[in-house]
Amino acid sequence: MITTSTEKNIKEPRITLVGAGPGDADLITLKGVKALQTADVVLYDALVNEELLDFAPAHATRVYVGKRSGDHSYSQSAVNKLMIDYAINYGHVVRLKGGDPFVFGRGFEELDYAASYSIPAQVIPGISSSIGVPGMQQIPVTHRGLSESFWVVTGTTASGKVSDDVYQAARTNATVVVLMGIHKLQEITAIFKAEGKNKLPVAVIQSGTTRDEKVAIGIVDTIVEVVEEKKITSPALIIFGEVVSLHPAFQPIKEFYDIVAEG
Amino acid sequence: MITTSTEKNIKEPRITLVGAGPGDADLITLKGVKALQTADVVLYDALVNEELLDFAPAHATRVYVGKRSGDHSYSQSAVNKLMIDYAINYGHVVRLKGGDPFVFGRGFEELDYAASYSIPAQVIPGISSSIGVPGMQQIPVTHRGLSESFWVVTGTTASGKVSDDVYQAARTNATVVVLMGIHKLQEITAIFKAEGKNKLPVAVIQSGTTRDEKVAIGIVDTIVEVVEEKKITSPALIIFGEVVSLHPAFQPIKEFYDIVAEG
Repeated sequence: MITTSTEKNIKEPRITLVGAGPGDADLITLKGVKALQTADVVLYDALVNEELLDFAPAHATRVYVGKRSGDHSYSQSAVNKLMIDYAINYGHVVRLKGGDPFVFGRGFEELDYAASYSIPAQVIPGISSSIGVPGMQQIPVTHRGLSESFWVVTGTTASGKVSDDVYQAARTNATVVVLMGIHKLQEITAIFKAEGKNKLPVAVIQSGTTRDEKVAIGIVDTIVEVVEEKKITSPALIIFGEVVSLHPAFQPIKEFYDIVAEG
Repeated sequence: MITTSTEKNIKEPRITLVGAGPGDADLITLKGVKALQTADVVLYDALVNEELLDFAPAHATRVYVGKRSGDHSYSQSAVNKLMIDYAINYGHVVRLKGGDPFVFGRGFEELDYAASYSIPAQVIPGISSSIGVPGMQQIPVTHRGLSESFWVVTGTTASGKVSDDVYQAARTNATVVVLMGIHKLQEITAIFKAEGKNKLPVAVIQSGTTRDEKVAIGIVDTIVEVVEEKKITSPALIIFGEVVSLHPAFQPIKEFYDIVAEG
């Protein structure tokens, strides 16, 4: 009975980057589930719903490689190396990432690293929180008459500054979705105020699509206060745009400003 | 045995908008599959993979309500009415829509219509082709050093004109993804040329994530020609941005222009 070690030796190394979706475990794709079902190793991030690990076979190794605040044990380059190491020694590595691997997920860096070792790698998209989180709250990122486009920006660039793209976005008609921007909410709303958009509807959603979800609805002028009241913190996204006015919680805000306007 | 008619009478009308994803049937979410499994009626669009209908129970009514060119038998208001009618008479209606219901899917209009009849409605996000189609081609919409944001715009507005947002987008650093713009490719590339972006990498992908997928890679100056050569047509999306240079097919183009630049 030497098949076990032989099988191990003939297992081809390969890597699949899988988007786990925004939080709700049922928001993974069938394709993602099928990849997990053939995993020998799963490397998963902080924002991934751990229930998804149950799709992997019992023999599969599960490795948490998340980066939470104050815990920098796994840098991107350490994750890259682990991924290669596991693929060469165990076979199929599923790299399970929150949201979509290519929406600020550094997925391409991992693909590129795999390519440098000639290890075949595939990408399975996931529901990006930028669309799925407002979506489950019934806030459409586009809507006839209100928005013909949406622009997804990161609030935290590699340098730690707010991206120039947020300044550009604040000047346009697009629905603007800011990911990883909650710690810079004051600075980001100031950018919209500088464009005269004080009354633009804004939503902030923490832990969207999960049981811990929290929602704050307001306008550019008030959202910082509402977020503080509701004690909303990371992970959260911010949606700027008239489409937010379609949320039921916006109705009393609209009525208030209509009365003020009438005088 | 009068249970059948009694059961029919007590079935609560409800509506679930489900994003079917970009084409590959396995790109639907588990949540979408579960909704289909409890459907009494499925109303589905032209761009939905019909394999997904197999998830609905045998008794479920399947109704094609797609709008293809030259076939305007189902207007949006006709779809809205059908949806209500089926919900009241049969119970759970799954409205299965290509991509994500809120990315140019007119999903909110359907929700709103359901609300006007006090019929409970839910939304289940889908993989938007804007992220998933480039993603499966290993083109990341964001990538450190190349793009800190992506902007998704429709090429075809209600009025038939190119959206003003395309003009705005052409001026920015964002990766720009244009949906439903293939018939206006010449006009849209002209907008990027007017901004001096003649050498910006561009990809056009038809029927992404399906067996019929076709990919054209070029730059703003050449993409119309490449698309004609490859006979690419609708449904297709266009991706403008440096991230397209990461696609393997861009390498020879880059080398060509490097040689030209060296003289």
